[in-house]
Formats: sequence, C-alpha cells, structure tokens
Amino acid sequence: MKRLLCILSAACLMTQAPAWAQQNINQEKQVITSPVVKNDRTVTFTLRAPNAQEVLISGDWMKGQRFAPMVKGENGLWTYTTEALPSDVYIYSYTVDGTRIIDPNTVFQCRDVNSLFSLFYIDGEYGDYYQVQDVPHGSVNRVWYHSDRLKSDRRMTIYTPAGYEDSKDSYPVLYLLHGSGGDEEAWITLGSVARIMDNLIAEGKAKPMIVVMPNGNPSKQAAPGETRDNLAYTPAMSNTFVGYKDGSYEESFHEIIDYVEGHYRVKADKAHRAIAGLSMGGFHSLQISANYPIFDYVGLFSPGISGLADYKVDLYENLDEKLTKLKNDGIKLYWIGIGTDDFLYKDVADYRKKLDALDFPYTYKESDKGHVWTNWRKYLLEFVQLMNKE
Amino acid sequence: MKRLLCILSAACLMTQAPAWAQQNINQEKQVITSPVVKNDRTVTFTLRAPNAQEVLISGDWMKGQRFAPMVKGENGLWTYTTEALPSDVYIYSYTVDGTRIIDPNTVFQCRDVNSLFSLFYIDGEYGDYYQVQDVPHGSVNRVWYHSDRLKSDRRMTIYTPAGYEDSKDSYPVLYLLHGSGGDEEAWITLGSVARIMDNLIAEGKAKPMIVVMPNGNPSKQAAPGETRDNLAYTPAMSNTFVGYKDGSYEESFHEIIDYVEGHYRVKADKAHRAIAGLSMGGFHSLQISANYPIFDYVGLFSPGISGLADYKVDLYENLDEKLTKLKNDGIKLYWIGIGTDDFLYKDVADYRKKLDALDFPYTYKESDKGHVWTNWRKYLLEFVQLMNKE
Repeated sequence: MKRLLCILSAACLMTQAPAWAQQNINQEKQVITSPVVKNDRTVTFTLRAPNAQEVLISGDWMKGQRFAPMVKGENGLWTYTTEALPSDVYIYSYTVDGTRIIDPNTVFQCRDVNSLFSLFYIDGEYGDYYQVQDVPHGSVNRVWYHSDRLKSDRRMTIYTPAGYEDSKDSYPVLYLLHGSGGDEEAWITLGSVARIMDNLIAEGKAKPMIVVMPNGNPSKQAAPGETRDNLAYTPAMSNTFVGYKDGSYEESFHEIIDYVEGHYRVKADKAHRAIAGLSMGGFHSLQISANYPIFDYVGLFSPGISGLADYKVDLYENLDEKLTKLKNDGIKLYWIGIGTDDFLYKDVADYRKKLDALDFPYTYKESDKGHVWTNWRKYLLEFVQLMNKE
Repeated sequence: MKRLLCILSAACLMTQAPAWAQQNINQEKQVITSPVVKNDRTVTFTLRAPNAQEVLISGDWMKGQRFAPMVKGENGLWTYTTEALPSDVYIYSYTVDGTRIIDPNTVFQCRDVNSLFSLFYIDGEYGDYYQVQDVPHGSVNRVWYHSDRLKSDRRMTIYTPAGYEDSKDSYPVLYLLHGSGGDEEAWITLGSVARIMDNLIAEGKAKPMIVVMPNGNPSKQAAPGETRDNLAYTPAMSNTFVGYKDGSYEESFHEIIDYVEGHYRVKADKAHRAIAGLSMGGFHSLQISANYPIFDYVGLFSPGISGLADYKVDLYENLDEKLTKLKNDGIKLYWIGIGTDDFLYKDVADYRKKLDALDFPYTYKESDKGHVWTNWRKYLLEFVQLMNKE
C-alpha cells in the first residue's frame, strides 16, 4: 500500500495517515499553531520564515498604517502578539520580504475585494454572534435569476431561517446589499450573516426572516470564479466595472424582488419588506427605497452617497421630492449608521441635513472607527432587531 | 477624504481606489501574474521571494515525489514552467524554505483535507466541464437536517438543476458521498459538481437531477468552520474522528433520504435513486446499497473497501447474501472505477472477484493514475451520463 511521501519528517501530518489517505498531493504541514487566542483576548501569531529579512503583519484591529513588524526568534520563527482585542472577528495577513501571504498555519480564510485574509474570533459580546453556536441553523442557497434589464442570468445568495422548510408560514424579507468591493458572497462571508441571523433568531431578538444578498454589479453575473470568465475574472472594485452607478441596477431591482416573492413564502407587502446595504449598497438602498417606496425598513450602513450629485442619471434626480413622498406615505424605520472615522462621514452629515430640512424621520447611529466590516456587522445586528417589532 | 495607505508603491492596486474604497485593511498586491496558462497548455508560475534559499512547487499533475524546484531569476522572482498538461483542473502550492504557502498572486483556492491549494484550469475535454460555461445554472443549497441516529443537526449540500424552481416536475436524485478527507464541501469544490451537472445537462448528456452531498463523518455536524467548534475544528482525516466505520452513518442514511424526499420534488422510487461515493464514500455507497436495496444506480469510485473484513460491525456482515439479494431484485447499474496506480487497486480487484463469483453484474472502469480527484471527477462525468437513460 502506498502512502503519502513525507518530505518534512517532523512536520508531516501523515503519520496518522489512514489506509486510503488521498494520494492527491503531499499535505505536509508545519506543527505550528497560529493564531493562538488567549483568555486575556491577546493573540499570538507565529510564522516560520528562516531566511526572511523582514516580516510584517497587517490586521484590521490595527490603527494608522496597519502594519507591524514581527520579531524573529529561534528556529526561523517570527512572532507577534496583539494587545487585548475587543470581541469581534478579525482578518490579517503577513508580508514576507514584500510578498503578501495568508497564514500557512490555518485553513480558515476569506476574500475581501481582491485579497485573501486569514481570520480569527475573539469570543464575547460580538464575536459570539459571528460564530456558529448550538442553535438551529438556517439554509444558505445560491440561486440564479434572470434580469431582462441587465440582460443576464445573475447569482444571489439567500438565507432562509431555521424551520422555514418545515413551516407553512410566510416570512419578512431583508434585501441586503454589498459595497463596491463586494458581490453576492460578501455579506455571507465577511458579514457573518447566517450566524448573526441564526443566533439573533434563537435568542428571540430578531424575527425569523429571509435575507437576500444579490450581486450589485450590473455587468457582473456573479462573484469572481462563479461566472463564465472563471479565473480570468480578477476581483476589483465596482467602479472599474461597466454599469457602475448608471441606475441600471436600481432599475433592475424589481426583478430580484419578483424572483424572491415568486419562489419563497414571503410576506409580500411593504410592512415586511426591508432593504439595507453598506457603502455602495447603502447608495443602492437609498435610491431603490426612494424610487420604489415599497420598503418599510431602510438601512443605510456607511452609505456611499458622495456621488449623489456626480452621476447624471435620471433615476437619481429629484431626490427631495421622492423623500418627501416617502415621508408622507409613511415608513417605519429609516436607519443610518456611520463611523466617526469614515471618509464618508461628512457626506452622511450633509445627507442628514437634507433629511432634517425635509423633516424626514430617521434613526441615526454613530459608531467609532471607519469604513470597515466591524461596523457593518454591528449595524446589521442592530438593524434586524428593529425590524418587524410588532 | 482618507484613502488606503500604499506601502508598496509599485505594487499598489489602490491607484484605482474609488471614493469609498474600504478602509478595512491595506490591500497591496504584487503586480505579478501567476499562474499563466498558455495556449500550448504549459503553465508558468512566478513567486517573489527575494531572500529565500529554496522554493519548491508541488502540484497534482506531478508524478513521484510531487515537488519540483523553482528557479531564481531577477528581482527575487522564482519561476517554474510545466510541460503541456492534459485538460483538467489542477491544484498546487509552494514551499518557501520549508514553509508551505498558496500562490499569493491569485485569490482562487480550495481546501483539500487540511491544506489550502491554489488552482487553475486547462481548457478542453475535461477542464471545460469543470468551469462555468454560458449555460443555465442550478442552485446550490446548504441545508441542515436532524439525525436521531447520530443525535445531531447536520449540514448537507444540495444541487438542484436549472429550472427546478420554476418546474412542477419531480427529479431523480443522486446521493454523492465524499472520502475520508472530506465533508459536505468536498464534492462541490474539488469535485466541480455544480459545473459538471450544469454543463452535462445543458448538452443533454445527463438528465436533470438533484445531487445530494451529505457529511459522512458521524461525529461531525459539518465541515470545518461550520460547526460550533468553529476554528477549533482542525480539519483531519475521518479515521481520526469518533464513529469512523462503526456502521452508524449507514444506519442514519435513511434520515438524509427522508429529508430530501420530504422537502424536494423527487421521484422517490428505486428507479430514480442513485448513490455513489469516492474512497470512504465508496465504502459507504457499497454498504448502504447492499443493506438498503433502494437504489437502481450505485457508483463505487476508488472505493475504500480494504476495511471490509477489519471492522466488526453487524451492518457489514453477510455481504454475499446481501449482494445476491441485490442481484436477484435487479439493479440497473453497479459501476466501479479505480485507477491502476491506486493503493486500493488490489482490494477492488478482490471485490470484483467476489462479484464475479456471485455472478453479480457490474460495469468496470479502469483509469490510469491513483487515488486522486482527477479520477473522481471523470468517474462522476461518466456515471451520471449512464443514469436514467430510459
């Protein structure tokens, strides 16, 4: 019987190789544990790089330049330990002599825009919501719908809450839109949506609801790797794509709603329909809710509204009139969240002045930090608890 | 307006940074394109590692030791070029001075057992089936079912073909089982199941069918990261897990079928029910089909049957009698595939002798190579085309 060849003796996991260990490829693994999260909420990272001259770590808990040098110790091991970190999920990478890599000692990773990151959790107030708990779990489906407006089949991610399949009930729906670095995978991975919803629903803090996460890039059918461009689709920011802020996505949005309301047991009325989004998705949510006033709950998370005046698109015109109609028709929640360090802070302040001038009621949440996922997850946590309180 | 700080000037993607580029973390990126697949089907890999003493590449197209040295050129760039490769999807990694990393210059990766790999496609006979084509796409759902037998909620992946949601038809079902390095994510990622099914169905070469990919590890609820153990669940081979080959999974299998037949529009009869699996999943398929003769199509892909005599489990006893009953009741397809280099080759030859002695009809496919995904994808391609030909 052949077994996998162990090249690095001390580093070979395959001493435990079973009778039919896959011969596919050698799966040698360093016996390094990294990251290590300690009870005091500090985290230690270890990387083996015996000949490297400089190893940096970059993590989203860092302030300022967001790079810190790792320290070389014995056996070619470089280490770094954080201060105690607030409860959250964090992402990081290393830069070894100028080459950026993820942590070779963990398989847990995620993609943000065009880069992979390793990740870890700090348990507690927030991190517990972002992790799988011993609660009933909802389903996560990737479906394709057709858009006549965008002339394409398009992929979206749909969360249905635990019990949906065995129920005859109809459910509220939250349409949850990504930013200009995202796609239909962004909220479900970086946003921890399934875990947040599972955990809030299990605690009775959010109503069971369906969460729809479409792809907001009009000229892209799906996330990188999921289109016919396959690996030739290099991830990039949405403003490099055809159709960015030309109004076509907003005009096509009813096709998403039609698909969802035609294929899922949905409370298909304004009182049970919500739309929220981060950054570009906040802009989309603002425009869609203003032009199609069929949502009783609107969430603008760090909304990318700096372009409001820049894009000469009919759909974006006459916003004051549309907001006035929205106010007069009545809306249950118009929720805005922004970080004090967000580069969009002033734009949001200006937008709030507009709303104030129109006597438009809204709920405003100001957090610390900037234009970052740690805020968007927290905004989602807060927003969905305010939905469908009746 | 704050923008992302560019540390590596020439290497910074953020020269195209949009107004609301995420501040989350610096996303500097080397301007290296790797891998590069050329028209002659050779592939060139480039890695920047200026201070490394030794850089190896390991890929699943290699024979023997499966490591090859990369060559250091100018600017700290190490390169390696393959010979012309047969059409397929391939995975690879680098080892830099003993530390194993994936390619920093692509975000496309997958996990096999306990290791990440970068990947690329070679177009053509097989690779075209494994990539997204301009055809209608099925949905891929991750659902949770409850197993009384295994005393747990458990996750599985379910593919439904394009048109399922808008049809009133009922569909055949293939239960497709992973090996001892896998879980409910293995077939959908490494096995390219959704693409294979989309493409075969679009060509009329396979009937539209539902493909159910459960988790075959009795003591694990789901894939690494998807259970309440979260990141503390270090991926490992199934024989290190409680419940390995104790018969409990086979005994619980009806709970998977009950869930699928209770929640999907399924042709719930023997004539439209198939079960197939690779390695440990081939063992599972053998045992489940022998003990519960409700499948007209059975596929054993490099089946892990070396343990047939080793495990003292009631469910695994009296196999000859069960196979004789299976033969007498009639079965449309009993399909066995094995590679000539597979370490299970002799076990499969012995099993064929048993079948021959019982005059049990089966279809046998002998391929080259060993216990590897390139074979299992090809076996799936062939097997599903033989299903439901009527």
